[in-house]
Amino acid sequence: MFFITGNKHKYEEAKIIVGNDIEMLSISYPEIQADTPEEVARYGIEYLKERIDGNFFIEDSGLFIEALNGFPGVYSSYVFRTIGNEGILKLMEGVEKRKAQFVSVVGYYDGDIHIFRGESKGVIAYEIKGSEGFGYDPIFIPEGDKRTFGEMKREEKNLFSHRGKAMKKLKEYLASRI
Amino acid sequence: MFFITGNKHKYEEAKIIVGNDIEMLSISYPEIQADTPEEVARYGIEYLKERIDGNFFIEDSGLFIEALNGFPGVYSSYVFRTIGNEGILKLMEGVEKRKAQFVSVVGYYDGDIHIFRGESKGVIAYEIKGSEGFGYDPIFIPEGDKRTFGEMKREEKNLFSHRGKAMKKLKEYLASRI
Repeated sequence: MFFITGNKHKYEEAKIIVGNDIEMLSISYPEIQADTPEEVARYGIEYLKERIDGNFFIEDSGLFIEALNGFPGVYSSYVFRTIGNEGILKLMEGVEKRKAQFVSVVGYYDGDIHIFRGESKGVIAYEIKGSEGFGYDPIFIPEGDKRTFGEMKREEKNLFSHRGKAMKKLKEYLASRI
Repeated sequence: MFFITGNKHKYEEAKIIVGNDIEMLSISYPEIQADTPEEVARYGIEYLKERIDGNFFIEDSGLFIEALNGFPGVYSSYVFRTIGNEGILKLMEGVEKRKAQFVSVVGYYDGDIHIFRGESKGVIAYEIKGSEGFGYDPIFIPEGDKRTFGEMKREEKNLFSHRGKAMKKLKEYLASRI
């Protein structure tokens, strides 16, 4: 089974949860501008299923900040590349409502399309903390903890994380098929 | 000839330049996440050409701010809907390098794909000014002027504007074909 991604961090996270028999395959596919990661994943699978021989999955995720009307949402990776965590913190200056959630959607194809969603609720930190993980990890504090994802080891973050939850659902689905 | 857009402002702008025989047709098409509006337009046309009977054009534009590494770029409309002009000004607080450009790409289909690009260079204002136009118009001051696009009438803005320039190129192309 292939995990279609160009992101090694995501691949490493996936192996821990879904298992070692995943191969990373870096093929690019069109990501549409949509409001939800589900739509992005579905469109990607429709494109890839014509081009890949075998079962595969993709993952799309985003950080949705309540006070910013869901921004950066499905454009999280672009926003990260341009304005980064510094930009997000600047937008959140003086904002007291700091609720946010990470959403991850895993889209799996085995002849049919299966969509698994994982969420991780929390708040936006007031400063960048920690150097683990990637992306917005150092500014996101999950519910029930005081540390950011950037201050947690990968295994620990997987317990909480949106991507961990979505991947676990994929794993359960795969187990149910054996 | 159809202008495929759901934006009445854009349609009104186009009629002034290209001519009155344009019909507005509001069909949605996939907009991909890409670095340039050219890629977005090309992908959109490939999708639409199978579905529309007759010649048509689409337009994709964005505001590229130098100090923000091109943000909000091709995601301008999403960013506008979420963080708005207030968000952009907040990101630009304390930033002295305020150069920005609007880019508009018109993609025309008449059996072949033609791409026309227009640019409008300027700077990001320090505050929101004017209520003409739409989107980022009230925070963009074009080179050679002291007013924002939001303080200009449509006809005047068209002289300067990225969209005006791209539409003019389309008009010239159409004239050359008669």
